[in-house]
Amino acid sequence: MPQKLYFGVDVGGTFTKLALVNAKGRLIAKSKVSSAGFSDKGFFVKTLRAVIYSILRDCKLSYRQVNGIGVGLPGPVDFKSGVVLSLTNIKGWDRFPLRAYLGRYFDAPVYIENDANCMALAEARMGAAAGSRYSLCVTLGTGVGGGVILDGKIYRGPYFLGGEIGHVPISADGPVCQCGGRACLEKYVGNRYLLERAKRIFRKNVSLEEVSDMADSGNRKAVEFWEETGATLGLVIAGFVNIFNPEVVVVGGGVAQAGKVLIDSIKKTVERHAMKQLKHKVKIRKAALGNDAGVLGAALLAEEYKSL
Amino acid sequence: MPQKLYFGVDVGGTFTKLALVNAKGRLIAKSKVSSAGFSDKGFFVKTLRAVIYSILRDCKLSYRQVNGIGVGLPGPVDFKSGVVLSLTNIKGWDRFPLRAYLGRYFDAPVYIENDANCMALAEARMGAAAGSRYSLCVTLGTGVGGGVILDGKIYRGPYFLGGEIGHVPISADGPVCQCGGRACLEKYVGNRYLLERAKRIFRKNVSLEEVSDMADSGNRKAVEFWEETGATLGLVIAGFVNIFNPEVVVVGGGVAQAGKVLIDSIKKTVERHAMKQLKHKVKIRKAALGNDAGVLGAALLAEEYKSL
Repeated sequence: MPQKLYFGVDVGGTFTKLALVNAKGRLIAKSKVSSAGFSDKGFFVKTLRAVIYSILRDCKLSYRQVNGIGVGLPGPVDFKSGVVLSLTNIKGWDRFPLRAYLGRYFDAPVYIENDANCMALAEARMGAAAGSRYSLCVTLGTGVGGGVILDGKIYRGPYFLGGEIGHVPISADGPVCQCGGRACLEKYVGNRYLLERAKRIFRKNVSLEEVSDMADSGNRKAVEFWEETGATLGLVIAGFVNIFNPEVVVVGGGVAQAGKVLIDSIKKTVERHAMKQLKHKVKIRKAALGNDAGVLGAALLAEEYKSL
Repeated sequence: MPQKLYFGVDVGGTFTKLALVNAKGRLIAKSKVSSAGFSDKGFFVKTLRAVIYSILRDCKLSYRQVNGIGVGLPGPVDFKSGVVLSLTNIKGWDRFPLRAYLGRYFDAPVYIENDANCMALAEARMGAAAGSRYSLCVTLGTGVGGGVILDGKIYRGPYFLGGEIGHVPISADGPVCQCGGRACLEKYVGNRYLLERAKRIFRKNVSLEEVSDMADSGNRKAVEFWEETGATLGLVIAGFVNIFNPEVVVVGGGVAQAGKVLIDSIKKTVERHAMKQLKHKVKIRKAALGNDAGVLGAALLAEEYKSL
């Protein structure tokens, strides 16, 4: 019997990634295309179809084996009805019934989900949180995303806005955030803020990779830079730990790949602030799936739907 | 057919409350006894039996109508196995299989649960959060307790320590907490701290009721006292709102009954810090069931067990 296959699609503001996986979530092939022009939904579908058929052709596989196509999107998504709620990076998709629309062009069932939730799902099923039933996945980048897995399932909440740990306020005052809140974690550990802070400290433009390299070679200021970042993140994570008691907290995104200092500082802070019954139970781990987490998680959505 | 009845028992460090309710959760009778001597489990059972039979006799009801006895306890409880995990206020109950033990003395099924979870359940089913499926219940007192209802069910987490919003750290530094953490919310809005703060501000011993009365009559310092308390609570609640998107946040306990200033300050702070899609959705409400929430919630446990 030919094996069952699933496509994962991770739609980003700049690039869209595709991956073909088998029923065990193992990656068979992947591809990456520009997201330019995706405001035109017809063009999006055409591109998707072209890449999917090309991947199948290259792998000498048949479309009939495709049992599901999961799409991760950079914004809140009504998972049940398959409607995109809002996307800041791609114009014209708000309130769009994407699942039904794509369903007309693909024979296989289509599933849509928020991208941070896809990452959390992939890390929980086959990444750094594999084997756990309760986990938090924090992704560091321009935005600070979060996905929460409770009792083995993505936590979506009543409005499909669950998991936004980047928007936990960390101070009574602080900068207004585009989310509508103020003093959000993202405003203190998001890439833009980190780059500004690095510029102030090192008195020149430095990339975060450079700050990581400096920390690795023992530069005191660079070490402190990541320690402070970890302390800020760790405090919010500790609060989450005390309320939701995850078995694993996965920290991913470009910055997390950087160095050991950041993760160690998060661990130290969580150990300092978590309840005694929890501090030695919760594992703080770097993401294991790197940039593939989103697209792998999207491919895993088919199974998630079964539990609805 | 005689109606089905349930007993709720709310075991506190000082007093233990009992309530008899019908299948709709309506209170039929209640009673209150001292918890002194409850370290002796045999004495606890004897007292429980005596009060239960006395209530039934007074109401001219039969024990045969009792379909379940729910017990709320001031500490973490393994709801599934019915084992008390730890109790700080009653010695000798740690790791005790209370459910099995009580089961030997009562014909009706016995259920045990953490008391803050019982309160959250009661408020969600028949109190300030009735009609919602996602809610947070914060109880203010010596401790700051929390109970979380997700998708209509108590959130317990993998270690039965879920919902401890009183132990969310609010600052990198701050006093060590008996929970093993540091700078916990409870250390800033728990009664002990509030009384100390009131003493510093008013330069004499004042009760929190007095500070509430002063605030009601417009005393500026007293108003500020509750505004600051609400701002501290509101910031932690806003973080919870952005991750878990509750429909209702219920604030209960002695202090919450105090005055409008506190609740208004919490509302204002949440509105300031919550995401724009959430800030007008989430309702911040005073608890509706007052001191009966715990015992009513305990009586409601029987139905909760069905979903296990």
